[in-house]
Amino acid sequence: MVSVIGYYTTKFGELWEKSLFDLVKEAIFGVLKNAEIELERIEGIFFANMLAGVLENNLHTGAKIAEILKINIPIFRVEAACASGGVAIYLAKNYLDSGVAKTVMVVGGEKMTDYSPEEVTDALSAAASGEEQEVGLTFPGLYGLIANYYLQKYHYTEENLAYVSLKNHYHGSLNEKAHFRKKVSIEEVLNSPYVAFPLKVLDSSPLSDGASAIILTCDKALIKKAKNKVNILSTKVATDSISLTKRKSLDELLATKIAAEKAFRETGLKREELNVAELHDCFSIAEILAMEDLGFWKKGAGGAQIKDLSTMYGRGGDLVINTSGGLKAAGHPVGATGIKQIGEIYLQLTNQAGDRQVKNAKYGLTHNVGGSGGTAVVTILGV
Amino acid sequence: MVSVIGYYTTKFGELWEKSLFDLVKEAIFGVLKNAEIELERIEGIFFANMLAGVLENNLHTGAKIAEILKINIPIFRVEAACASGGVAIYLAKNYLDSGVAKTVMVVGGEKMTDYSPEEVTDALSAAASGEEQEVGLTFPGLYGLIANYYLQKYHYTEENLAYVSLKNHYHGSLNEKAHFRKKVSIEEVLNSPYVAFPLKVLDSSPLSDGASAIILTCDKALIKKAKNKVNILSTKVATDSISLTKRKSLDELLATKIAAEKAFRETGLKREELNVAELHDCFSIAEILAMEDLGFWKKGAGGAQIKDLSTMYGRGGDLVINTSGGLKAAGHPVGATGIKQIGEIYLQLTNQAGDRQVKNAKYGLTHNVGGSGGTAVVTILGV
Repeated sequence: MVSVIGYYTTKFGELWEKSLFDLVKEAIFGVLKNAEIELERIEGIFFANMLAGVLENNLHTGAKIAEILKINIPIFRVEAACASGGVAIYLAKNYLDSGVAKTVMVVGGEKMTDYSPEEVTDALSAAASGEEQEVGLTFPGLYGLIANYYLQKYHYTEENLAYVSLKNHYHGSLNEKAHFRKKVSIEEVLNSPYVAFPLKVLDSSPLSDGASAIILTCDKALIKKAKNKVNILSTKVATDSISLTKRKSLDELLATKIAAEKAFRETGLKREELNVAELHDCFSIAEILAMEDLGFWKKGAGGAQIKDLSTMYGRGGDLVINTSGGLKAAGHPVGATGIKQIGEIYLQLTNQAGDRQVKNAKYGLTHNVGGSGGTAVVTILGV
Repeated sequence: MVSVIGYYTTKFGELWEKSLFDLVKEAIFGVLKNAEIELERIEGIFFANMLAGVLENNLHTGAKIAEILKINIPIFRVEAACASGGVAIYLAKNYLDSGVAKTVMVVGGEKMTDYSPEEVTDALSAAASGEEQEVGLTFPGLYGLIANYYLQKYHYTEENLAYVSLKNHYHGSLNEKAHFRKKVSIEEVLNSPYVAFPLKVLDSSPLSDGASAIILTCDKALIKKAKNKVNILSTKVATDSISLTKRKSLDELLATKIAAEKAFRETGLKREELNVAELHDCFSIAEILAMEDLGFWKKGAGGAQIKDLSTMYGRGGDLVINTSGGLKAAGHPVGATGIKQIGEIYLQLTNQAGDRQVKNAKYGLTHNVGGSGGTAVVTILGV
């Protein structure tokens, strides 16, 4: 069994005074302190990052981390677009299962706000298909197409989507590490400018800087000693055609469905046993699709169900979604996102989530997506 | 035990009529045919690539491969500069050891010749440290500094280095997949123009296009059925400070030494038991350092020993180096290189190496380096 025994995240936001490696260093030393273990105990590092190559001609980041830490252990850079963090954790968990190491760190980081939004949007489009890039489709555009299709097919309006933002911004207001700590009303969401119809600024996650790290171990002595620990009960990855045109259905993410089915099967848990989940809400529509594709809500029902706000903190619902604020309000420094998701579930299941602590949370799930669904990672954790 | 049960490589060279994914596709279907297994047997793919993000804004390549193959299995993109291929194989081997899958493919590819040498040299410098990039140091420059130091310290001349190129170009002439199939003389090497003193064009590996793939399995039935198979006896990764200025010594690659020590210790083999090896000869000096750092030659002795040409095919030596032609003559499509190295040893140990077949080869080694030594992978294979 692999356990998470420590977590640290930098603040997410526009951190112009810090470089990528400043943030990564803060996350690395932060998580070592949090887990109360020495760097010498770490036998390998998995580093998740998407854009440093494209934006700052910065590759081979594993060796750069070796230099910062003055170490010679294996360090692996993993890239799967916005699912880089989740995939890094998946590979790290299996690495430990192989017996080659007992304790590893997974760290993810991204530096996005030193560049113009146009430059970063262009760089992010590297995760879309070549054809989509050629016709100028960006991620807001791709998710806009999905949202439009969903709203028309199931007879919803933009107002239905706005409830995702309202909920996640409320959660962000409770998270001191979140990029945005401001609550928003349905009216504010609906009155915010369009980014790609029907999605508006307040339907969209921001470009953020930040880094997050966790420590994973299968060392029984370390697990026993750890103050706070949660177990990875299952982690699964699936892929799918990257182009929307090659998908069977525009209103589901097949990779999410496949990964979720496998993860639930491995744990033997039922959907209703989950207490908390961090879902990949890069755009409001994405959280609704995720709730359906993960099997929490029926396909097509999400637009109505989100209006109940039963998944909002403090409403007494059985399953609270994106207590961190999600990508929407906590921010989306791409390589860090999948790590922060696991970290948030770790905080919830170990009763360290402060103002947003869900009572008696025993099981949590994370859902991390690359591109518009080309890669999905689903991980289930328990105490 | 994890075995290699199939190998395919495209021709390496200036393949202007083919895209990155054309090459990757050829390698994937080539290796399936070579191993005589169906795509459905593959449970995961590790994809090694360094530069597609920087050069063609092409990331999230795992999902793009899913689209090409119409599959939904986990696909991982691994990047560790020029060691991307070796690291991908290392992670794939440990992935199989975890029990999560029985059979995976490792494919690596790079498309370099559609861009100007200046653009590609700049992109490759992403693997150097930020300080080195800022002062304009490119990889020829970094290895030039190392070569200059080595030649001065041990009283050799540029002629000593030239024997590496003579040998590897001879081997390339025997390999139909090699980028260069032309033999070169010591005079030709010495008369070729300087790239970065004391290294000349004919001391340097070329920019190449190409893709290579292997199939790894721990499935006993598949291994039994396989016509040709070799076992991965050990594979190890180490890292080191990426900046030359932060290294203890300029004439050794510490990461190579650490990885080699661990790999030899795990196998229990002695250096003299090895018959063939593929070493990371990005520049002539690199092969000499590698021979020393791997423990085949004494530190400082390599400059003299290479002149014997005992490591050249057909000379009756006990250990033949870079029968593929190495990076120097076979070419260096970055992401493919580490895969091709394993493939060449696979060919040698299964008696499929044709004109360059080393007789009775039982044990082989590969050595794949990222940057100027920031990452090193050493893998030992046996029949």
